[in-house]
Amino acid sequence: MIDLFVIKVGGNVIDNPTLLEAFLQKFAAIKGKKILIHGGGKIATRMGDQLGIASRYVNGRRITDAATIDVVTMVYGGLVNKQLVAKLQANGCNAIGLTGADANIIPAVKRPVKEIDFGFVGDVTTDSVQAAPLQALLEAGMTPVFAPLTHDGKGQILNTNADTIASSLAIALSQHYSVRLIYCFEKKGVLHDANDDNAVINLIDRQIYEELKADNVLTDGILPKLENAFAAIESGVAEVLIGHADDVQSNTTDTVAGTLIR
Amino acid sequence: MIDLFVIKVGGNVIDNPTLLEAFLQKFAAIKGKKILIHGGGKIATRMGDQLGIASRYVNGRRITDAATIDVVTMVYGGLVNKQLVAKLQANGCNAIGLTGADANIIPAVKRPVKEIDFGFVGDVTTDSVQAAPLQALLEAGMTPVFAPLTHDGKGQILNTNADTIASSLAIALSQHYSVRLIYCFEKKGVLHDANDDNAVINLIDRQIYEELKADNVLTDGILPKLENAFAAIESGVAEVLIGHADDVQSNTTDTVAGTLIR
Repeated sequence: MIDLFVIKVGGNVIDNPTLLEAFLQKFAAIKGKKILIHGGGKIATRMGDQLGIASRYVNGRRITDAATIDVVTMVYGGLVNKQLVAKLQANGCNAIGLTGADANIIPAVKRPVKEIDFGFVGDVTTDSVQAAPLQALLEAGMTPVFAPLTHDGKGQILNTNADTIASSLAIALSQHYSVRLIYCFEKKGVLHDANDDNAVINLIDRQIYEELKADNVLTDGILPKLENAFAAIESGVAEVLIGHADDVQSNTTDTVAGTLIR
Repeated sequence: MIDLFVIKVGGNVIDNPTLLEAFLQKFAAIKGKKILIHGGGKIATRMGDQLGIASRYVNGRRITDAATIDVVTMVYGGLVNKQLVAKLQANGCNAIGLTGADANIIPAVKRPVKEIDFGFVGDVTTDSVQAAPLQALLEAGMTPVFAPLTHDGKGQILNTNADTIASSLAIALSQHYSVRLIYCFEKKGVLHDANDDNAVINLIDRQIYEELKADNVLTDGILPKLENAFAAIESGVAEVLIGHADDVQSNTTDTVAGTLIR
């Protein structure tokens, strides 16, 4: 019996006021304990441009320099996070907006410099996540809403991938709850046929996964998502669901619209 | 026996990295339950200027238009608040950064338009402050750190005076704790002699206050602070202290450096 939903919503929803409003209404209506993790969206890039701070990429990977970490702290941790909280409150959801620095919930390590210096990017190890303060918030009836930020414990905020935060929180909380980890993305789920958006595979387990791989049904984009899903399950998460943001409410029930992985 | 300190620190400390670092070390070292409320500082004005958003004032009062509320949400709620949290965590204080929207702790009303339209400014009524979620955080060993922001319950973030937030929280929490409300400012306390910074009056009660007023000892600047202090005390706050940010630690003891009002 699932008793906690850990839900990640991406920048594409954050960037679109109509999609966002619809998503937040549905998220607010989900019964029981839940946590939201939001991506950043393009607002930080736009804000950086306006402030004359150019986004730097190496091999397609964004570099978080000193000016950029201040911008993402402002935009993700302030503007986006607090607007989401205010809107969820307006929808009757008792949201509390956090970063991984708050209550030391997600300590991280600044990514070591190898070929590329990613700058102020934080890598999270699942066993460093503090479940106790999160549990205190959940048990007090609050819905934590996380910006994709962590800290190094030495006073520095770090930029961290929202998918990673979602899976790390889900794994850490699996000690105390039976967790369904839900990734909202732009498709309804994992598809039998990449050209048919309605050809959703509703259930994937390890055996089905191996068969789908052998049959070359899965696209390159979905493979790492499924690998991450099985990694989360092997670390204690009860179920992972991949589905559309529009379906977030039904994806917390037994009759899912998306793809349930377990 | 005081068992909660509600401490407000102003923009002058936030704007000065050396003062801020010293203050945070002292704040972190304070024993027992505590809450920090921080002012905004000049960073929001600077950021607004960089983004081409001019600060507007009417009769010396700042107007918070739609562009400005986004800037203060970013800067106060994101950059300043989360940097304070990360630095307090580095000093061993289990800080959690909040606005009044988070967990619906400080519902506010957008200030009604009379002669001046102040824009997105929130007025707080003490009896609307939610003590229960704050109590849950304090009892879980967390130190709430508030940005000077509230919300209207309909999805809008509002700009609110940090002194008002501090006194409203102190009054609401007086139902559950014996509270000392500490205002950090640029003097050591209320002075016998405006020209002698060390002539601190260590204790003021209603009778002493009336005598000081009759003797014209008090400057115009300090009168409203003392009026607010007595208003807080009449609403249940055990003690109010006015003192320097440098003295915050000793001002949580019995031998205060500042002015204790009760």
